[in-house]
Amino acid sequence: MIDWLAFSRACVRDLEAVLAQLPTRAEREPIMGAGEGGDDTTAIDAAAEAAVVARLEALGADLILVSEELGMRTFGAGGDLRVIVDPIDGSVNAKRGIPFFSLSLAVAHGPAMDDVRFGFVHDFGSGEEWVAQRGGGAFLDGTPLAGPGPKETLEILALEGTTTAAVAAAVPALHGVAHRVRVMGSLALSLCHLAAGRVDAVCCLKPARSIDIAAAQLLVRERGYAIELFEDPPFAAAPLDLDQRSRVAAAGTPELCARLAAALRTV
Amino acid sequence: MIDWLAFSRACVRDLEAVLAQLPTRAEREPIMGAGEGGDDTTAIDAAAEAAVVARLEALGADLILVSEELGMRTFGAGGDLRVIVDPIDGSVNAKRGIPFFSLSLAVAHGPAMDDVRFGFVHDFGSGEEWVAQRGGGAFLDGTPLAGPGPKETLEILALEGTTTAAVAAAVPALHGVAHRVRVMGSLALSLCHLAAGRVDAVCCLKPARSIDIAAAQLLVRERGYAIELFEDPPFAAAPLDLDQRSRVAAAGTPELCARLAAALRTV
Repeated sequence: MIDWLAFSRACVRDLEAVLAQLPTRAEREPIMGAGEGGDDTTAIDAAAEAAVVARLEALGADLILVSEELGMRTFGAGGDLRVIVDPIDGSVNAKRGIPFFSLSLAVAHGPAMDDVRFGFVHDFGSGEEWVAQRGGGAFLDGTPLAGPGPKETLEILALEGTTTAAVAAAVPALHGVAHRVRVMGSLALSLCHLAAGRVDAVCCLKPARSIDIAAAQLLVRERGYAIELFEDPPFAAAPLDLDQRSRVAAAGTPELCARLAAALRTV
Repeated sequence: MIDWLAFSRACVRDLEAVLAQLPTRAEREPIMGAGEGGDDTTAIDAAAEAAVVARLEALGADLILVSEELGMRTFGAGGDLRVIVDPIDGSVNAKRGIPFFSLSLAVAHGPAMDDVRFGFVHDFGSGEEWVAQRGGGAFLDGTPLAGPGPKETLEILALEGTTTAAVAAAVPALHGVAHRVRVMGSLALSLCHLAAGRVDAVCCLKPARSIDIAAAQLLVRERGYAIELFEDPPFAAAPLDLDQRSRVAAAGTPELCARLAAALRTV
Protein backbone atom coordinates (compact mmCIF):
# COMPACT_ATOMS: atom_id res chain seq x y z
CA MET A 1 0.00 0.00 0.00
CA ILE A 2 1.33 3.41 -0.95
CA ASP A 3 0.90 6.14 1.67
CA TRP A 4 -0.48 8.81 -0.65
CA LEU A 5 -0.68 11.49 2.03
CA ALA A 6 3.02 11.09 2.80
CA PHE A 7 3.73 11.01 -0.94
CA SER A 8 1.76 14.25 -1.48
CA ARG A 9 3.52 16.01 1.36
CA ALA A 10 6.88 14.98 -0.07
CA CYS A 11 5.80 16.51 -3.40
CA VAL A 12 4.97 19.76 -1.55
CA ARG A 13 8.50 19.88 -0.13
CA ASP A 14 9.93 19.31 -3.61
CA LEU A 15 7.74 22.05 -5.07
CA GLU A 16 8.77 24.47 -2.32
CA ALA A 17 12.36 23.86 -3.40
CA VAL A 18 11.41 24.50 -7.03
CA LEU A 19 9.72 27.77 -6.05
CA ALA A 20 12.81 28.86 -4.14
CA GLN A 21 15.02 28.03 -7.13
CA LEU A 22 12.79 30.14 -9.40
CA PRO A 23 12.04 33.05 -7.06
CA THR A 24 10.69 35.75 -9.38
CA ARG A 25 8.65 36.31 -12.50
CA ALA A 26 11.85 36.58 -14.51
CA GLU A 27 12.62 32.88 -13.85
CA ARG A 28 9.05 31.56 -13.64
CA GLU A 29 7.21 32.92 -16.64
CA PRO A 30 9.26 32.03 -19.75
CA ILE A 31 7.10 29.78 -21.92
CA MET A 32 8.65 26.35 -22.56
CA GLY A 33 5.96 25.01 -24.94
CA ALA A 34 2.32 24.01 -25.05
CA GLY A 35 1.18 21.47 -22.46
CA GLU A 36 -0.98 18.47 -23.36
CA GLY A 37 -3.70 20.09 -21.24
CA GLY A 38 -3.92 22.99 -23.70
CA ASP A 39 -2.33 25.82 -21.73
CA ASP A 40 1.13 27.26 -22.24
CA THR A 41 3.77 25.49 -20.17
CA THR A 42 5.75 28.09 -18.26
CA ALA A 43 9.11 27.43 -16.63
CA ILE A 44 7.48 27.05 -13.22
CA ASP A 45 4.93 24.55 -14.59
CA ALA A 46 7.64 22.47 -16.26
CA ALA A 47 9.93 22.42 -13.23
CA ALA A 48 7.04 21.56 -10.90
CA GLU A 49 5.88 18.67 -13.06
CA ALA A 50 9.41 17.31 -13.38
CA ALA A 51 9.66 17.20 -9.59
CA VAL A 52 6.39 15.28 -9.21
CA VAL A 53 7.20 12.88 -12.04
CA ALA A 54 10.61 12.10 -10.51
CA ARG A 55 8.94 11.24 -7.23
CA LEU A 56 6.33 9.05 -8.98
CA GLU A 57 9.09 7.19 -10.85
CA ALA A 58 10.87 6.55 -7.57
CA LEU A 59 7.75 4.76 -6.28
CA GLY A 60 8.27 1.99 -8.83
CA ALA A 61 4.53 1.32 -8.90
CA ASP A 62 2.21 0.32 -11.76
CA LEU A 63 -0.01 3.30 -12.51
CA ILE A 64 -1.19 5.78 -15.10
CA LEU A 65 -0.29 9.44 -14.59
CA VAL A 66 -2.65 12.12 -15.90
CA SER A 67 -0.88 15.46 -15.74
CA GLU A 68 -1.17 18.97 -17.14
CA GLU A 69 1.97 19.18 -19.23
CA LEU A 70 2.84 15.54 -20.06
CA GLY A 71 -0.65 14.25 -20.69
CA MET A 72 -1.13 10.56 -19.88
CA ARG A 73 1.92 8.42 -19.14
CA THR A 74 2.07 4.76 -18.08
CA PHE A 75 4.42 3.83 -15.25
CA GLY A 76 5.39 0.14 -14.94
CA ALA A 77 2.53 -2.06 -16.15
CA GLY A 78 -0.09 0.68 -15.86
CA GLY A 79 -3.36 -0.89 -14.69
CA ASP A 80 -6.29 0.56 -12.77
CA LEU A 81 -4.38 2.90 -10.48
CA ARG A 82 -4.53 6.43 -11.78
CA VAL A 83 -2.80 9.53 -10.33
CA ILE A 84 -4.24 12.84 -11.53
CA VAL A 85 -1.93 15.79 -10.91
CA ASP A 86 -1.86 19.49 -11.52
CA PRO A 87 1.55 20.35 -10.07
CA ILE A 88 0.64 24.06 -10.05
CA ASP A 89 -3.06 24.88 -10.13
CA GLY A 90 -3.12 28.64 -10.54
CA SER A 91 -0.07 28.96 -12.81
CA VAL A 92 -0.66 32.63 -13.56
CA ASN A 93 -0.68 33.47 -9.86
CA ALA A 94 2.41 31.31 -9.29
CA LYS A 95 4.43 32.92 -12.04
CA ARG A 96 3.44 36.43 -10.88
CA GLY A 97 4.00 35.66 -7.18
CA ILE A 98 0.38 36.05 -6.03
CA PRO A 99 0.18 33.76 -2.97
CA PHE A 100 -2.86 31.77 -4.08
CA PHE A 101 -1.93 28.61 -6.02
CA SER A 102 -1.79 24.94 -5.19
CA LEU A 103 -0.69 21.39 -5.83
CA SER A 104 -3.70 19.24 -6.74
CA LEU A 105 -3.20 15.46 -6.55
CA ALA A 106 -5.88 12.78 -6.74
CA VAL A 107 -5.63 8.98 -6.69
CA ALA A 108 -8.28 6.82 -8.40
CA HIS A 109 -8.80 3.09 -8.70
CA GLY A 110 -10.35 3.29 -12.16
CA PRO A 111 -10.87 5.70 -15.06
CA ALA A 112 -13.80 7.85 -13.84
CA MET A 113 -14.39 10.64 -11.32
CA ASP A 114 -16.32 8.28 -9.05
CA ASP A 115 -13.20 6.12 -8.78
CA VAL A 116 -11.25 8.85 -6.96
CA ARG A 117 -10.45 7.65 -3.44
CA PHE A 118 -7.96 10.28 -2.28
CA GLY A 119 -7.72 14.01 -2.89
CA PHE A 120 -4.97 16.38 -1.77
CA VAL A 121 -4.67 20.14 -2.34
CA HIS A 122 -1.87 22.22 -0.80
CA ASP A 123 -2.15 26.02 -0.75
CA PHE A 124 1.33 27.49 -1.24
CA GLY A 125 0.10 30.91 -0.09
CA SER A 126 -1.52 30.17 3.26
CA GLY A 127 0.18 26.80 3.76
CA GLU A 128 -3.20 25.13 4.28
CA GLU A 129 -3.49 21.40 3.51
CA TRP A 130 -6.82 20.07 2.21
CA VAL A 131 -7.36 16.29 2.18
CA ALA A 132 -10.30 14.00 1.43
CA GLN A 133 -10.66 10.23 1.68
CA ARG A 134 -13.59 8.69 -0.16
CA GLY A 135 -16.10 7.72 2.52
CA GLY A 136 -13.72 9.03 5.16
CA GLY A 137 -14.45 12.74 5.11
CA ALA A 138 -12.75 16.01 4.29
CA PHE A 139 -9.98 17.61 6.33
CA LEU A 140 -8.21 20.96 6.68
CA ASP A 141 -4.77 20.72 8.28
CA GLY A 142 -5.74 17.34 9.70
CA THR A 143 -9.02 18.48 11.29
CA PRO A 144 -12.37 17.30 9.88
CA LEU A 145 -14.22 20.13 8.15
CA ALA A 146 -17.23 21.13 10.26
CA GLY A 147 -19.19 24.24 11.12
CA PRO A 148 -21.27 26.41 8.84
CA GLY A 149 -21.34 25.40 5.18
CA PRO A 150 -22.04 27.38 2.03
CA LYS A 151 -25.05 29.72 2.20
CA GLU A 152 -28.31 29.09 0.37
CA THR A 153 -28.49 32.77 -0.56
CA LEU A 154 -25.24 33.20 -2.41
CA GLU A 155 -23.07 35.87 -0.78
CA ILE A 156 -19.81 34.91 -2.55
CA LEU A 157 -19.48 33.17 -5.92
CA ALA A 158 -15.94 32.20 -6.94
CA LEU A 159 -15.32 32.43 -10.68
CA GLU A 160 -12.39 30.58 -12.23
CA GLY A 161 -11.00 29.92 -15.69
CA THR A 162 -11.39 33.56 -16.45
CA THR A 163 -10.17 36.09 -18.92
CA THR A 164 -11.58 39.60 -18.81
CA ALA A 165 -13.65 38.67 -21.86
CA ALA A 166 -15.11 35.61 -20.12
CA VAL A 167 -15.96 37.62 -17.01
CA ALA A 168 -17.55 40.36 -19.13
CA ALA A 169 -19.70 37.75 -20.87
CA ALA A 170 -20.72 35.79 -17.77
CA VAL A 171 -21.15 38.25 -14.93
CA PRO A 172 -24.25 40.05 -16.26
CA ALA A 173 -26.01 36.64 -16.29
CA LEU A 174 -24.92 36.07 -12.68
CA HIS A 175 -26.16 39.45 -11.44
CA GLY A 176 -29.07 38.60 -9.16
CA VAL A 177 -27.71 35.09 -8.56
CA ALA A 178 -24.85 36.04 -6.20
CA HIS A 179 -24.18 39.24 -4.27
CA ARG A 180 -20.40 39.24 -4.66
CA VAL A 181 -17.90 37.53 -6.91
CA ARG A 182 -14.32 36.55 -6.24
CA VAL A 183 -11.81 35.73 -8.96
CA MET A 184 -8.89 34.23 -7.05
CA GLY A 185 -7.11 32.20 -9.73
CA SER A 186 -7.06 28.56 -8.54
CA LEU A 187 -10.06 26.33 -9.26
CA ALA A 188 -8.82 23.61 -6.90
CA LEU A 189 -8.53 26.06 -4.00
CA SER A 190 -11.88 27.69 -4.74
CA LEU A 191 -13.54 24.25 -4.55
CA CYS A 192 -11.78 23.60 -1.23
CA HIS A 193 -13.11 26.93 0.02
CA LEU A 194 -16.62 25.80 -0.96
CA ALA A 195 -16.09 22.58 1.01
CA ALA A 196 -15.20 24.75 4.03
CA GLY A 197 -18.16 27.11 3.58
CA ARG A 198 -15.86 30.07 2.82
CA VAL A 199 -17.57 30.70 -0.51
CA ASP A 200 -21.10 29.69 -1.47
CA ALA A 201 -20.62 28.58 -5.06
CA VAL A 202 -17.91 28.05 -7.68
CA CYS A 203 -18.18 28.34 -11.46
CA CYS A 204 -15.43 27.64 -13.97
CA LEU A 205 -16.13 29.76 -17.06
CA LYS A 206 -14.12 27.58 -19.41
CA PRO A 207 -14.46 23.80 -19.78
CA ALA A 208 -12.52 22.22 -16.92
CA ARG A 209 -10.07 19.36 -17.05
CA SER A 210 -10.11 16.50 -14.58
CA ILE A 211 -6.63 17.48 -13.37
CA ASP A 212 -8.04 20.75 -11.99
CA ILE A 213 -10.96 19.21 -10.10
CA ALA A 214 -10.29 15.52 -9.34
CA ALA A 215 -8.80 16.19 -5.90
CA ALA A 216 -10.96 19.09 -4.69
CA GLN A 217 -14.25 17.59 -5.90
CA LEU A 218 -13.77 14.85 -3.32
CA LEU A 219 -13.71 17.43 -0.52
CA VAL A 220 -16.91 18.99 -1.90
CA ARG A 221 -18.68 15.65 -2.24
CA GLU A 222 -17.49 14.26 1.09
CA ARG A 223 -19.17 17.24 2.73
CA GLY A 224 -22.39 16.44 0.85
CA TYR A 225 -22.28 19.48 -1.40
CA ALA A 226 -22.97 19.46 -5.13
CA ILE A 227 -20.75 19.70 -8.20
CA GLU A 228 -21.71 19.19 -11.82
CA LEU A 229 -20.11 19.22 -15.26
CA PHE A 230 -23.40 20.56 -16.51
CA GLU A 231 -22.64 20.31 -20.21
CA ASP A 232 -21.62 16.64 -19.92
CA PRO A 233 -23.32 14.97 -16.95
CA PRO A 234 -23.29 12.83 -14.91
CA PHE A 235 -20.34 14.05 -12.86
CA ALA A 236 -19.57 10.61 -11.39
CA ALA A 237 -18.84 9.19 -14.87
CA ALA A 238 -16.52 12.01 -16.00
CA PRO A 239 -13.36 10.46 -17.49
CA LEU A 240 -10.10 11.13 -15.67
CA ASP A 241 -8.27 12.40 -18.73
CA LEU A 242 -7.16 15.71 -20.22
CA ASP A 243 -10.18 16.53 -22.37
CA GLN A 244 -12.20 19.65 -21.71
CA ARG A 245 -15.87 18.72 -22.03
CA SER A 246 -17.85 21.04 -19.81
CA ARG A 247 -17.87 24.05 -17.58
CA VAL A 248 -18.30 23.37 -13.86
CA ALA A 249 -20.82 24.57 -11.29
CA ALA A 250 -20.55 23.71 -7.60
CA ALA A 251 -22.63 24.84 -4.61
CA GLY A 252 -24.35 23.63 -1.48
CA THR A 253 -27.17 21.82 -3.27
CA PRO A 254 -27.95 20.35 -6.71
CA GLU A 255 -30.72 22.96 -7.05
CA LEU A 256 -28.21 25.82 -6.67
CA CYS A 257 -25.88 24.14 -9.19
CA ALA A 258 -28.78 23.90 -11.63
CA ARG A 259 -29.54 27.59 -11.13
CA LEU A 260 -25.92 28.54 -11.85
CA ALA A 261 -25.83 26.25 -14.88
CA ALA A 262 -29.02 27.80 -16.23
CA ALA A 263 -27.49 31.27 -15.91
CA LEU A 264 -24.23 30.23 -17.59
CA ARG A 265 -26.00 28.41 -20.44
CA THR A 266 -27.30 31.79 -21.61
CA VAL A 267 -23.70 33.00 -22.09
CA MET B 1 9.75 59.05 18.86
CA ILE B 2 7.23 56.26 18.51
CA ASP B 3 8.51 53.11 16.78
CA TRP B 4 5.57 52.64 14.43
CA LEU B 5 6.87 49.42 12.93
CA ALA B 6 7.07 47.82 16.38
CA PHE B 7 3.64 49.26 17.19
CA SER B 8 2.16 47.80 13.98
CA ARG B 9 3.65 44.38 14.64
CA ALA B 10 2.20 44.43 18.15
CA CYS B 11 -1.21 45.18 16.62
CA VAL B 12 -0.77 42.15 14.34
CA ARG B 13 -0.18 39.93 17.35
CA ASP B 14 -3.30 41.36 19.02
CA LEU B 15 -5.36 40.77 15.89
CA GLU B 16 -4.11 37.20 15.60
CA ALA B 17 -5.43 36.65 19.11
CA VAL B 18 -8.78 38.19 18.12
CA LEU B 19 -8.98 35.89 15.08
CA ALA B 20 -8.27 32.87 17.28
CA GLN B 21 -10.98 33.94 19.73
CA LEU B 22 -13.49 34.26 16.88
CA PRO B 23 -12.50 31.23 14.80
CA THR B 24 -15.45 30.73 12.44
CA ARG B 25 -18.10 32.57 10.51
CA ALA B 26 -20.58 31.93 13.32
CA GLU B 27 -18.57 34.18 15.65
CA ARG B 28 -17.20 36.63 13.08
CA GLU B 29 -20.12 37.73 10.94
CA PRO B 30 -22.88 38.95 13.28
CA ILE B 31 -23.49 42.63 12.46
CA MET B 32 -22.89 44.94 15.42
CA GLY B 33 -23.97 48.19 13.75
CA ALA B 34 -23.01 50.57 10.95
CA GLY B 35 -19.44 51.87 10.96
CA GLU B 36 -18.62 55.54 10.45
CA GLY B 37 -16.93 54.47 7.21
CA GLY B 38 -20.28 53.39 5.79
CA ASP B 39 -19.99 49.59 5.85
CA ASP B 40 -21.67 47.24 8.29
CA THR B 41 -19.54 46.57 11.35
CA THR B 42 -19.26 42.84 11.88
CA ALA B 43 -18.14 41.21 15.12
CA ILE B 44 -14.64 40.66 13.70
CA ASP B 45 -14.38 44.31 12.62
CA ALA B 46 -15.48 45.56 16.05
CA ALA B 47 -13.15 43.27 17.98
CA ALA B 48 -10.21 44.09 15.72
CA GLU B 49 -10.73 47.82 16.08
CA ALA B 50 -11.07 47.56 19.86
CA ALA B 51 -7.68 45.83 19.98
CA VAL B 52 -5.96 48.53 17.92
CA VAL B 53 -7.62 51.37 19.86
CA ALA B 54 -6.53 49.87 23.18
CA ARG B 55 -2.94 49.75 21.95
CA LEU B 56 -3.14 53.37 20.71
CA GLU B 57 -4.51 54.50 24.07
CA ALA B 58 -1.63 52.77 25.83
CA LEU B 59 0.81 54.91 23.81
CA GLY B 60 -0.36 58.03 25.65
CA ALA B 61 0.49 60.17 22.61
CA ASP B 62 -1.24 63.22 21.11
CA LEU B 63 -2.77 62.15 17.81
CA ILE B 64 -5.90 61.86 15.74
CA LEU B 65 -7.14 58.38 14.83
CA VAL B 66 -9.01 57.86 11.58
CA SER B 67 -10.58 54.42 11.62
CA GLU B 68 -13.25 52.42 9.82
CA GLU B 69 -15.76 51.89 12.61
CA LEU B 70 -15.12 54.75 15.07
CA GLY B 71 -14.52 57.53 12.58
CA MET B 72 -12.16 60.26 13.78
CA ARG B 73 -11.14 60.33 17.44
CA THR B 74 -8.71 62.66 19.20
CA PHE B 75 -6.21 61.12 21.62
CA GLY B 76 -4.55 63.44 24.13
CA ALA B 77 -4.22 66.93 22.65
CA GLY B 78 -4.63 65.75 19.04
CA GLY B 79 -2.36 67.85 16.81
CA ASP B 80 -0.75 67.08 13.48
CA LEU B 81 -0.03 63.38 14.03
CA ARG B 82 -2.65 61.26 12.34
CA VAL B 83 -2.95 57.44 12.42
CA ILE B 84 -5.14 56.00 9.66
CA VAL B 85 -6.24 52.42 10.35
CA ASP B 86 -8.34 49.76 8.76
CA PRO B 87 -8.00 46.99 11.34
CA ILE B 88 -9.38 44.46 8.83
CA ASP B 89 -9.16 45.41 5.16
CA GLY B 90 -11.07 42.64 3.43
CA SER B 91 -13.75 42.15 6.09
CA VAL B 92 -15.87 39.86 3.93
CA ASN B 93 -12.92 37.52 3.40
CA ALA B 94 -12.05 37.67 7.09
CA LYS B 95 -15.52 36.80 8.27
CA ARG B 96 -15.79 33.94 5.77
CA GLY B 97 -12.28 32.63 6.46
CA ILE B 98 -10.77 33.32 3.02
CA PRO B 99 -7.06 33.81 3.77
CA PHE B 100 -6.69 37.17 2.01
CA PHE B 101 -7.26 40.13 4.33
CA SER B 102 -5.01 42.58 6.09
CA LEU B 103 -4.28 45.18 8.71
CA SER B 104 -3.65 48.56 7.05
CA LEU B 105 -2.00 51.24 9.21
CA ALA B 106 -0.56 54.56 8.05
CA VAL B 107 1.02 57.41 10.00
CA ALA B 108 0.88 60.99 8.70
CA HIS B 109 2.26 64.29 9.94
CA GLY B 110 -0.63 66.34 8.59
CA PRO B 111 -4.14 66.00 7.15
CA ALA B 112 -3.44 64.99 3.52
CA MET B 113 -2.26 61.90 1.63
CA ASP B 114 1.10 63.55 0.89
CA ASP B 115 1.68 63.81 4.64
CA VAL B 116 1.82 60.02 5.05
CA ARG B 117 5.31 59.03 6.20
CA PHE B 118 4.82 55.38 7.16
CA GLY B 119 2.66 52.63 5.70
CA PHE B 120 2.20 49.09 7.03
CA VAL B 121 0.05 46.27 5.61
CA HIS B 122 0.06 42.76 7.10
CA ASP B 123 -1.44 39.87 5.11
CA PHE B 124 -3.10 37.47 7.56
CA GLY B 125 -3.29 34.78 4.87
CA SER B 126 0.29 34.52 3.64
CA GLY B 127 1.85 36.23 6.66
CA GLU B 128 3.60 38.75 4.40
CA GLU B 129 4.53 42.14 5.86
CA TRP B 130 4.52 45.18 3.55
CA VAL B 131 6.17 48.39 4.80
CA ALA B 132 6.97 51.76 3.26
CA GLN B 133 8.83 54.78 4.64
CA ARG B 134 8.37 58.03 2.80
CA GLY B 135 11.61 58.66 0.90
CA GLY B 136 12.98 55.41 2.33
CA GLY B 137 11.52 52.84 -0.03
CA ALA B 138 9.10 49.91 0.04
CA PHE B 139 9.77 46.57 1.71
CA LEU B 140 8.37 43.04 1.75
CA ASP B 141 9.30 41.06 4.86
CA GLY B 142 12.15 43.47 5.47
CA THR B 143 13.66 43.25 1.99
CA PRO B 144 13.48 46.21 -0.42
CA LEU B 145 11.09 45.54 -3.30
CA ALA B 146 13.07 45.07 -6.49
CA GLY B 147 12.88 43.08 -9.68
CA PRO B 148 10.30 43.26 -12.45
CA GLY B 149 7.47 45.74 -11.89
CA PRO B 150 3.96 45.90 -13.31
CA LYS B 151 3.65 45.25 -17.05
CA GLU B 152 2.88 47.96 -19.60
CA THR B 153 0.56 45.55 -21.40
CA LEU B 154 -1.87 44.69 -18.62
CA GLU B 155 -1.92 40.94 -17.96
CA ILE B 156 -3.66 41.12 -14.57
CA LEU B 157 -6.00 43.86 -13.37
CA ALA B 158 -7.12 43.60 -9.74
CA LEU B 159 -10.65 44.88 -9.14
CA GLU B 160 -11.78 45.81 -5.64
CA GLY B 161 -14.83 47.28 -3.96
CA THR B 162 -16.97 44.94 -5.93
CA THR B 163 -20.44 43.57 -5.90
CA THR B 164 -21.57 41.35 -8.75
CA ALA B 165 -23.53 44.33 -10.05
CA ALA B 166 -20.43 46.55 -10.04
CA VAL B 167 -18.36 43.91 -11.83
CA ALA B 168 -21.12 43.39 -14.40
CA ALA B 169 -21.20 47.13 -15.06
CA ALA B 170 -17.44 47.70 -15.20
CA VAL B 171 -15.87 44.66 -16.82
CA PRO B 172 -17.25 45.15 -20.34
CA ALA B 173 -15.53 48.57 -20.36
CA LEU B 174 -12.27 46.95 -19.25
CA HIS B 175 -12.35 44.26 -21.94
CA GLY B 176 -9.45 45.11 -24.24
CA VAL B 177 -7.70 47.02 -21.45
CA ALA B 178 -6.50 44.00 -19.42
CA HIS B 179 -6.25 40.33 -20.35
CA ARG B 180 -7.27 38.91 -16.97
CA VAL B 181 -8.99 40.22 -13.88
CA ARG B 182 -8.60 39.20 -10.28
CA VAL B 183 -11.13 40.02 -7.57
CA MET B 184 -9.30 39.10 -4.38
CA GLY B 185 -11.15 41.15 -1.77
CA SER B 186 -8.57 43.45 -0.11
CA LEU B 187 -7.76 46.80 -1.75
CA ALA B 188 -4.74 47.36 0.51
CA LEU B 189 -3.23 43.99 -0.46
CA SER B 190 -3.97 44.46 -4.15
CA LEU B 191 -2.09 47.78 -4.07
CA CYS B 192 0.85 46.04 -2.33
CA HIS B 193 0.79 43.42 -5.09
CA LEU B 194 1.01 46.23 -7.65
CA ALA B 195 4.02 47.65 -5.79
CA ALA B 196 5.65 44.21 -6.10
CA GLY B 197 4.76 43.80 -9.80
CA ARG B 198 2.45 40.84 -9.06
CA VAL B 199 -0.47 42.58 -10.74
CA ASP B 200 -0.29 45.28 -13.39
CA ALA B 201 -3.11 47.57 -12.32
CA VAL B 202 -5.70 48.05 -9.58
CA CYS B 203 -9.14 49.64 -9.80
CA CYS B 204 -11.57 50.17 -6.95
CA LEU B 205 -15.07 50.19 -8.40
CA LYS B 206 -16.60 52.14 -5.53
CA PRO B 207 -15.28 55.41 -4.11
CA ALA B 208 -12.42 54.54 -1.76
CA ARG B 209 -11.77 55.82 1.71
CA SER B 210 -8.37 56.97 2.90
CA ILE B 211 -8.30 54.19 5.48
CA ASP B 212 -8.19 51.58 2.70
CA ILE B 213 -5.36 53.18 0.72
CA ALA B 214 -3.25 55.44 2.98
CA ALA B 215 -0.73 52.73 3.86
CA ALA B 216 -0.49 50.81 0.58
CA GLN B 217 -0.37 53.91 -1.63
CA LEU B 218 2.99 54.70 -0.04
CA LEU B 219 4.41 51.39 -1.28
CA VAL B 220 3.08 52.13 -4.78
CA ARG B 221 4.50 55.66 -4.84
CA GLU B 222 7.83 54.74 -3.25
CA ARG B 223 8.34 52.38 -6.17
CA GLY B 224 7.56 55.19 -8.59
CA TYR B 225 4.27 53.77 -9.80
CA ALA B 226 1.08 55.77 -10.26
CA ILE B 227 -2.16 56.03 -8.28
CA GLU B 228 -5.00 58.49 -8.76
CA LEU B 229 -8.36 59.34 -7.21
CA PHE B 230 -9.45 60.25 -10.70
CA GLU B 231 -12.77 61.80 -9.76
CA ASP B 232 -11.16 64.13 -7.20
CA PRO B 233 -7.51 64.80 -8.06
CA PRO B 234 -4.82 65.57 -7.15
CA PHE B 235 -4.02 62.43 -5.16
CA ALA B 236 -1.41 64.12 -2.97
CA ALA B 237 -4.02 66.51 -1.53
CA ALA B 238 -6.62 63.84 -0.70
CA PRO B 239 -7.86 64.40 2.86
CA LEU B 240 -7.09 61.67 5.39
CA ASP B 241 -10.67 61.30 6.56
CA LEU B 242 -13.58 58.91 6.10
CA ASP B 243 -15.30 60.50 3.12
CA GLN B 244 -15.65 58.61 -0.13
CA ARG B 245 -14.92 61.02 -2.96
CA SER B 246 -13.56 59.02 -5.85
CA ARG B 247 -12.84 55.66 -7.34
CA VAL B 248 -9.15 54.69 -7.55
CA ALA B 249 -6.93 53.63 -10.43
CA ALA B 250 -3.33 52.52 -9.95
CA ALA B 251 -0.78 51.14 -12.42
CA GLY B 252 2.84 51.41 -13.52
CA THR B 253 2.48 54.84 -15.14
CA PRO B 254 0.17 57.88 -15.04
CA GLU B 255 -0.74 57.14 -18.67
CA LEU B 256 -2.05 53.66 -17.76
CA CYS B 257 -4.00 55.15 -14.83
CA ALA B 258 -5.56 57.66 -17.20
CA ARG B 259 -6.52 54.85 -19.57
CA LEU B 260 -8.21 52.90 -16.75
CA ALA B 261 -9.96 56.04 -15.52
CA ALA B 262 -11.23 56.77 -19.02
CA ALA B 263 -12.68 53.25 -19.25
CA LEU B 264 -14.31 53.48 -15.82
CA ARG B 265 -15.77 56.94 -16.45
CA THR B 266 -18.01 55.36 -19.10
CA VAL B 267 -19.57 53.12 -16.43
